[in-house]
Amino acid sequence: MSTGRLESFSDGVIAVAITLLVLDLVVPPLRHGHTLAGDLGHEWPDFVAYGVSFVTVGIIWMNHHVMISRLRVADHFVHFVNLLLLMSIVLLPFTTALMARYLQARHGESLAAGVYGGSLLLMGTLFSLLHHHILARRPELMSVEMTPAQRRRILVRSASGVTPYLLATALAPVSPYLTLAITGAVAAFYALPAATAGS
Amino acid sequence: MSTGRLESFSDGVIAVAITLLVLDLVVPPLRHGHTLAGDLGHEWPDFVAYGVSFVTVGIIWMNHHVMISRLRVADHFVHFVNLLLLMSIVLLPFTTALMARYLQARHGESLAAGVYGGSLLLMGTLFSLLHHHILARRPELMSVEMTPAQRRRILVRSASGVTPYLLATALAPVSPYLTLAITGAVAAFYALPAATAGS
Amino acid sequence: MSTGRLESFSDGVIAVAITLLVLDLVVPPLRHGHTLAGDLGHEWPDFVAYGVSFVTVGIIWMNHHVMISRLRVADHFVHFVNLLLLMSIVLLPFTTALMARYLQARHGESLAAGVYGGSLLLMGTLFSLLHHHILARRPELMSVEMTPAQRRRILVRSASGVTPYLLATALAPVSPYLTLAITGAVAAFYALPAATAGS
Amino acid sequence: MSTGRLESFSDGVIAVAITLLVLDLVVPPLRHGHTLAGDLGHEWPDFVAYGVSFVTVGIIWMNHHVMISRLRVADHFVHFVNLLLLMSIVLLPFTTALMARYLQARHGESLAAGVYGGSLLLMGTLFSLLHHHILARRPELMSVEMTPAQRRRILVRSASGVTPYLLATALAPVSPYLTLAITGAVAAFYALPAATAGS
Repeated sequence: MSTGRLESFSDGVIAVAITLLVLDLVVPPLRHGHTLAGDLGHEWPDFVAYGVSFVTVGIIWMNHHVMISRLRVADHFVHFVNLLLLMSIVLLPFTTALMARYLQARHGESLAAGVYGGSLLLMGTLFSLLHHHILARRPELMSVEMTPAQRRRILVRSASGVTPYLLATALAPVSPYLTLAITGAVAAFYALPAATAGS
Repeated sequence: MSTGRLESFSDGVIAVAITLLVLDLVVPPLRHGHTLAGDLGHEWPDFVAYGVSFVTVGIIWMNHHVMISRLRVADHFVHFVNLLLLMSIVLLPFTTALMARYLQARHGESLAAGVYGGSLLLMGTLFSLLHHHILARRPELMSVEMTPAQRRRILVRSASGVTPYLLATALAPVSPYLTLAITGAVAAFYALPAATAGS
Repeated sequence: MSTGRLESFSDGVIAVAITLLVLDLVVPPLRHGHTLAGDLGHEWPDFVAYGVSFVTVGIIWMNHHVMISRLRVADHFVHFVNLLLLMSIVLLPFTTALMARYLQARHGESLAAGVYGGSLLLMGTLFSLLHHHILARRPELMSVEMTPAQRRRILVRSASGVTPYLLATALAPVSPYLTLAITGAVAAFYALPAATAGS
Repeated sequence: MSTGRLESFSDGVIAVAITLLVLDLVVPPLRHGHTLAGDLGHEWPDFVAYGVSFVTVGIIWMNHHVMISRLRVADHFVHFVNLLLLMSIVLLPFTTALMARYLQARHGESLAAGVYGGSLLLMGTLFSLLHHHILARRPELMSVEMTPAQRRRILVRSASGVTPYLLATALAPVSPYLTLAITGAVAAFYALPAATAGS
């Protein structure tokens, strides 16, 4: 199967998933004795988590696009792992809402942050696995020629991109704010001009 | 009408439907005397059903793509049955949630599982009907030449793909867990390398 | 502006709108003294309305595709009226749910059915208006040559397609079931082989 | 990275966001002592806000399309600011519902309208920033030749498009109806034939 439709289907799924994040933002109900400013202020984790997840999915999309554009044909492994990767991306509106809703709670906050970090870790791992399959195991699937040094550099970069999500998940029991801070820092890092060059 | 837009419209609908599955996953409300771990654990049918339906729709998409790519032009029958097929796929976020929500209930669990199995059966039947129309009744619609033996092989394969969904629906009154197990096994089967070759 | 992106944007919006119809189907809550069969049976207007609206949007998509494929370039009027047409299509998940939810109610049922019929009437009218603009007022926008007789035939057909929706809206005060029956009959009519030829 | 996928991903996100606006329209629950006409009448801000936001997003889409079609290649800045622009567009189903729900409330109405105006202001500012980057700072990214006078004219137009949203936000504390009126006037203005020429 050619990679054109694989890419456009993946793009479609990612575009819907990134947009469904807005459903996590809830209009506060009109209640006596509450101010809208107070209610929206109380929802700040939802807004921050929306921003972090939105930028994160945007980065995944860009990297996914670069990865697929190097492919000439896709084998069964690429199709299946790509489907699992999409499944992990589509989970984000749920895991984002879970972390945001429990961030300030007195119980469950570590688990919620761990699930959020874990879903990003799963996504990064599946992405890295795809990269490894294409670059290290089946380079004949590629449409471009690459030296072993170039491929190694991409693989190291891809694998090291998983590290912050491993940290964000592992540190969730210490504090869910750490999880949010680390994943937010990764998103902010990609705003820097040099960050995505050649990724 | 050329098949390009038929395919891109179908791809769009399937991409949205597969992503809406995440709306079945609900963030447990903060409640006194409940733990998040307990609440998420209690929701396990939702997570399993999400995975099964996600992979199933992914497989349908791949097979749909292969089927349409063999078409040169689409007649009225193809358009209409394809629309019904999309309608059955779009039902899945509802039937998936229905089965998951009632799986552990003391009543309605057989009906809910039967509706889920039935929606997959409907999808498989419409898919098979399209295959039959194109390969057996109107081969002149195709863009590729096929021997009668090749066509027969695809038709048998396509028709036999309906069998597990027939079983999953028929066995729902025995136990809804059987329905979930059979549909899950079909999804897992397609993860095997040889499973989609030439389907 | 070329018509390629106009069409792909319209396709995207229509694909999302047709899929959001599934959100009108609600999993009945687990309640003591209720059976799932009874609850789903009580929801039958939702299922019927889902089917009618799904097929109706599918027909609109096909006709929209045929209309745009005849265009070489789009002027400002085409862009703006097409945007209003999309707005009327995107309303359908709301108006469909409104009619279905009030169909069996003792009050508001006529208004709800009138709103549903009215939204389809609006859609048909905007579609007809676009057709009239392209075929009668600005034939130089077209990519194909047509005789006046051909254009007249398409215009008459397009305008007459509005009639059943006018009836469905006008008869809503008599009975909302009439609205559902007429709109359902239009959808069923398009299932006939000869119905969409040359529309 | 070529601009084709950037545009199709942006189109996908905008198509989903514009369609999710319909989720702001809620079917009134069946309640004793309430009429559907009264309940829907009470919801008029939701319908007006739906129309204003729908047309506004439609205009953004058209302008976005014109902007991207002038690009030959996209640099890191274009990718990142485009992602933030999409994030502001995807916020609209939330900020639209917020303004509509609080328009007739006795408290919070100014803040809600300010947030709505502010989200449109953010969108306009990011759009203007992208225009400035492409036309003034990196004209070598463009696929078309433009005289300095042409570029200046587009920049002035793009920057002045932000002014009404600045007003709509600044006047929210005076009255939320002013915010709605100004943003509605902008949408209505673009319905005029001459409005989008060469934008």
